[in-house]
Amino acid sequence: MKTRRSDRLVDMTNYLLTQPRKLVSLTQFAKRYDSAKSSISEDLSILKRTFQERGIGLLETLPGAAGGARFIPYMLPEEAQTFINELVDEVNDETRVLPGGYVFLSDLLGRPEILKRVGRLLATQYINEDIDAVMTAATKGVPVAQAVAQELNVPFVIVRNDSKITEGPTMSVNYLTGSSKRVEKMELSRRSLPTGSRVLVVDDFMKAGGTIKGMMSLVGEFEGTVVGAAVFAEGRVSERVVAKYTSLIHVDTLSSDGTGITVTPGNYETEVYENNNLND
Amino acid sequence: MKTRRSDRLVDMTNYLLTQPRKLVSLTQFAKRYDSAKSSISEDLSILKRTFQERGIGLLETLPGAAGGARFIPYMLPEEAQTFINELVDEVNDETRVLPGGYVFLSDLLGRPEILKRVGRLLATQYINEDIDAVMTAATKGVPVAQAVAQELNVPFVIVRNDSKITEGPTMSVNYLTGSSKRVEKMELSRRSLPTGSRVLVVDDFMKAGGTIKGMMSLVGEFEGTVVGAAVFAEGRVSERVVAKYTSLIHVDTLSSDGTGITVTPGNYETEVYENNNLND
Repeated sequence: MKTRRSDRLVDMTNYLLTQPRKLVSLTQFAKRYDSAKSSISEDLSILKRTFQERGIGLLETLPGAAGGARFIPYMLPEEAQTFINELVDEVNDETRVLPGGYVFLSDLLGRPEILKRVGRLLATQYINEDIDAVMTAATKGVPVAQAVAQELNVPFVIVRNDSKITEGPTMSVNYLTGSSKRVEKMELSRRSLPTGSRVLVVDDFMKAGGTIKGMMSLVGEFEGTVVGAAVFAEGRVSERVVAKYTSLIHVDTLSSDGTGITVTPGNYETEVYENNNLND
Repeated sequence: MKTRRSDRLVDMTNYLLTQPRKLVSLTQFAKRYDSAKSSISEDLSILKRTFQERGIGLLETLPGAAGGARFIPYMLPEEAQTFINELVDEVNDETRVLPGGYVFLSDLLGRPEILKRVGRLLATQYINEDIDAVMTAATKGVPVAQAVAQELNVPFVIVRNDSKITEGPTMSVNYLTGSSKRVEKMELSRRSLPTGSRVLVVDDFMKAGGTIKGMMSLVGEFEGTVVGAAVFAEGRVSERVVAKYTSLIHVDTLSSDGTGITVTPGNYETEVYENNNLND
């Protein structure tokens, strides 16, 4: 059944948005709507323009009869700034400070409308990178990993400290926790990650960066490549064991009495938008 | 700037899809597009028809000048059946069986295209229920919780066995693991869940149901109401401690030697579509 343009526009928008980074060919669309490729091409120009004007993301179109379109999640710098400022305001709250200078963030990392934007923001940074998988550490890194994996449309894998009997054979590494200098062990199910994968490492919170560094060495054990490291929040430390990373917010607490808190934007905007470091 | 219909259709689709279950008023749309409410109403009819015809979900429209529209994720029975059969085929693989009769599922629960459909399917069941939060147990329940929380557009909370210093004050309950009859403790940060919440309990895998039952009693400690319980997979057991739940797949392994596996659809389709138990 031939479809009307208006119906095609609605369905194509859903179809492309729910399959980020995947190329959909003109042929597929022409079949789906029983319409001429020339009409589909016109539809795609409308989508492209609206996606751009409304800050939804980029629609990459490949010309010609063998061409097609691919939706690439991308957040404009203005929206990113507004979002990061919102996060700063929400976290900048003395009641979030826990004994030892820890900060309560679990509520934010359980809210879909925040996670969706975290995912879009981190996907923006790696817009020009091939990524095969996202890696994180259990438990609180999982929501961040799932959010960005969804926008990149790749699987995510969960590294654990405790060996679970439901994971099968695992690969493990020892790592030094950056802050307390204890030696710990982290492991990942062998079956989770194909060898040679290009991996983005993410976590909810980074202090010295021991966990991130541990995950990076685990990627090495799987003969993979670390594409980058990104965290939701970073804390203040005297020395960091990870050189290159991005953070959305920076949280500073007075760990001695556990009351004061100072929250500022992390290095994301500087690293990504200002230095035009979109990894291209 | 007045917008063209085609541009409005594309943007409205994205706008509604990314905010499930939220009512967007005609006034909001009229302002966003500098267009008459009558034009917006016509746009919404187009969206409603296409969402329905393409199985994207339901668009609930409230008539009149004070009205608006709300996108409700809903999966048609045919798509649900196809999806569940796909899951059955993927899990029905002897190499997934681990010693002790456990089954490796982490790869599936790390794939965005699977999680998205798990979320839509579980949201379909509770289409007519008010839900304030989704609760799950760390670590492997998290992806399921996040997926359904996104479609319901409500927060999710993570119950843990180990007390973490970054969670602040917690509420805890003891529970009996159904299979091995050990007494364990699970806890949830006080700050995560407002008292009196209506909660959907989810997990990746249920054997006897001890963890699910523990979470239900934890909801009680927060003076909340359990709206339902749903799991990705259920195993075979002689006795279950939870009476009412839904599962997408049923997994049966021969735990003595750990090789044979039989996977069948869970009770979801029977409970939800056949009994028309859409909780209305």
